[in-house]
Amino acid sequence: RINSARLWDSLMEMARIGPGIAGGCNRQTVTDADAEGRALFQRWCEAAGMSMGVDRMGTMFATRPGTDPEALPVYVGSHLDTQPTGGKFDGVLGVLGALEVVRTMNDLGIRTRHPIVVTNWTNEEGARFAPAMLASGVFAGVHTLEYAYDREDGEGLKFGAELARIGWVGDEEVGARKMHAYYELHIEQGPILEAENKEIGVVTHCQGLWWLEFTLTGKEAHTGSTPMPMRVNAGLAMARIMEMVQEVAMAAQPDAVGGVGQMRFSPNSRNVLPGTVVFTVDIRSPDQAKLDGMRAEIEARAAEICAALKVECAVEAVGHFDPVTFDPALVGAVRRAAEKLGYGHMDIVSGAGHDACWAARVAPATMVMCPCVDGLSHNEAEDITPAWAAAGTDVLFHAVLETAEV
Amino acid sequence: RINSARLWDSLMEMARIGPGIAGGCNRQTVTDADAEGRALFQRWCEAAGMSMGVDRMGTMFATRPGTDPEALPVYVGSHLDTQPTGGKFDGVLGVLGALEVVRTMNDLGIRTRHPIVVTNWTNEEGARFAPAMLASGVFAGVHTLEYAYDREDGEGLKFGAELARIGWVGDEEVGARKMHAYYELHIEQGPILEAENKEIGVVTHCQGLWWLEFTLTGKEAHTGSTPMPMRVNAGLAMARIMEMVQEVAMAAQPDAVGGVGQMRFSPNSRNVLPGTVVFTVDIRSPDQAKLDGMRAEIEARAAEICAALKVECAVEAVGHFDPVTFDPALVGAVRRAAEKLGYGHMDIVSGAGHDACWAARVAPATMVMCPCVDGLSHNEAEDITPAWAAAGTDVLFHAVLETAEV
Ligand SMILES: NC(=O)NCCC(=O)O
Ligand SMILES: NC(=O)NCCC(=O)O
Repeated sequence: RINSARLWDSLMEMARIGPGIAGGCNRQTVTDADAEGRALFQRWCEAAGMSMGVDRMGTMFATRPGTDPEALPVYVGSHLDTQPTGGKFDGVLGVLGALEVVRTMNDLGIRTRHPIVVTNWTNEEGARFAPAMLASGVFAGVHTLEYAYDREDGEGLKFGAELARIGWVGDEEVGARKMHAYYELHIEQGPILEAENKEIGVVTHCQGLWWLEFTLTGKEAHTGSTPMPMRVNAGLAMARIMEMVQEVAMAAQPDAVGGVGQMRFSPNSRNVLPGTVVFTVDIRSPDQAKLDGMRAEIEARAAEICAALKVECAVEAVGHFDPVTFDPALVGAVRRAAEKLGYGHMDIVSGAGHDACWAARVAPATMVMCPCVDGLSHNEAEDITPAWAAAGTDVLFHAVLETAEV
Repeated sequence: RINSARLWDSLMEMARIGPGIAGGCNRQTVTDADAEGRALFQRWCEAAGMSMGVDRMGTMFATRPGTDPEALPVYVGSHLDTQPTGGKFDGVLGVLGALEVVRTMNDLGIRTRHPIVVTNWTNEEGARFAPAMLASGVFAGVHTLEYAYDREDGEGLKFGAELARIGWVGDEEVGARKMHAYYELHIEQGPILEAENKEIGVVTHCQGLWWLEFTLTGKEAHTGSTPMPMRVNAGLAMARIMEMVQEVAMAAQPDAVGGVGQMRFSPNSRNVLPGTVVFTVDIRSPDQAKLDGMRAEIEARAAEICAALKVECAVEAVGHFDPVTFDPALVGAVRRAAEKLGYGHMDIVSGAGHDACWAARVAPATMVMCPCVDGLSHNEAEDITPAWAAAGTDVLFHAVLETAEV
């Protein structure tokens, strides 16, 4: 078993870096707070006897050598970046859980044939720079390095320049590493495990996603002196598209969701009908045909809604991944570990995207999930119990031991 | 007749201060650009032989003495502040038109019994600090000075502190001045005069307004892993309220309008359902009962919409004025001036709010309107012809002459 108290202490210590305003964290990617979190993580890795490599996306790879110089490493990780009003566990549990796996191996004097590489992927959240899972996407060859460097945040700052500013552009070519396997522990971020009273989710699949960024162009005009029939109202078109997305998602239930998290009115003045409204529709499903069907329906109906209001409508896909089926052998290892340790478990589909989804393109990969209170995540009030964190990390430990070969 | 070329030159020179990004202006209230515009206006007033007084709201009063030391002044003015993406004429024409009236009197050696006071009211637009017509509202006793000083912009800066920062806190008590009459020239900001091919709008009334700021509180949650039935979706409630406001306004047509110009999602991240959505509904009508009925209907239906979605709904009225009936004698003076000068004219209701609406509470007041291209305002593309500007200013000149008694 892993050391539950040490794991919890590390989680709490990391959470003090980039504190939120309501008990959670604001440690967004490639900010000063991110740099501080990285430095702490590096100190911990070095104290555990690992050596750090960093690639040109800033992803951190801390290696514990194996006994066989020919054997490819087993990668275990997640991300330390958070949402602007994020929780203490989303991503962080996966990185510090992986670190705890190595610390426990050290305590118990366990050697593995395959090296273990504890991994902290850069910009998983995609909150500051869309898309999410940016560094693992470049690693898997889904995006180019140039594309990633060119991503802009809301202030017009570029990802590449910000990564350089905080001093975390490494020298490794992105994606040059070869993996024997990839494991990721993560909180569920949904309500199922808690409701079913299971400590462990054996993650078999992950939902696919489209982020559709709508740019609606109406006519800036005075809210008072512009008669109703003369309005070219981009805000009204937005409202109708939001209602339509809700309708499409409700019809595609239960294995689909849809919603809007980001919205910008311009010029955003109380007495000006907006000239431009930009917002992002987030749709997901584990069923590829359903996911793509929702996208097509949403785009077609949005075009009709806008045409009726004479509003111009442009749509750009700013984030996407296909549904993922995780590696059956690794999934089996997770299930066996949960059974051996006596934890209640069930198969589950990940509702959120994870670096494991991109890693699965270049290596056998899977995930371990543990419950979170009320299914709440992307919220400062996100919470888990020390017992859940320990159960997930125990299962991760035993699955990794099996794959890395003691 | 006034000097049309000189008026136009002054309009164009003022427009160079706080230039916009698309040919218009961004000279928002109590910014550095506003201070620069004020300084230019003061130089012009002094060059025209007027003396400047400033009150504690920063409103500028440039006086041309009359021949009767006992006679109260005729005030003529509007505002030099603009929307963030505003036009070159909204407000500015009224201030520089008033200045042109004085310059023409100087040219022609005309003396009036009543003094003339050219006025630049602070923060008419209400874009940076709600409500609109803030300084004239304090002048008319509708708001206290403390209330005004305490208004906050989007960055949390206070109006009072910003006015002090740009150095325009005057020493006059606000509202201490007594007015014989108040005239305001303004572009229509709507399509009627142009469509009817009239150079002059004789403004008999002004629509009343409510700005209802909605704060919807849902539950911040992950857009991917939160099942549809678990969502407490403040964004969806917003969309439904916007559609409902449209419905209420359409039903109350033609003498009513309703729309939304300002919107804020929090935390505004693509993969987070918003915890809070704040937006302002702007409704107007010249009919008091209709206006208040719309407000009541909107609040009641919004409460139902939110209750159905379990979203908390708070509404605050952040701006309001009742419909206004302008002074019949002054309205007659405007109509007579238009007739005498041979300009096409018609009676019109102002769709927008103006400082004249508050001035009307403390003095006989009215307005003169001239057309604007396509009825467009609160848009950098706002435009008028030099001939329209001249016609409006000619009518203003003759109406003021009648009221100020040559
Ligand atoms: N796990 C997680 O929240 N990832 C961010 C990408 C997503 O929105 O699914
Ligand atoms: N004239 C004008 O645009 N005033 C601003 C106040 C309003 O929104 O009516």
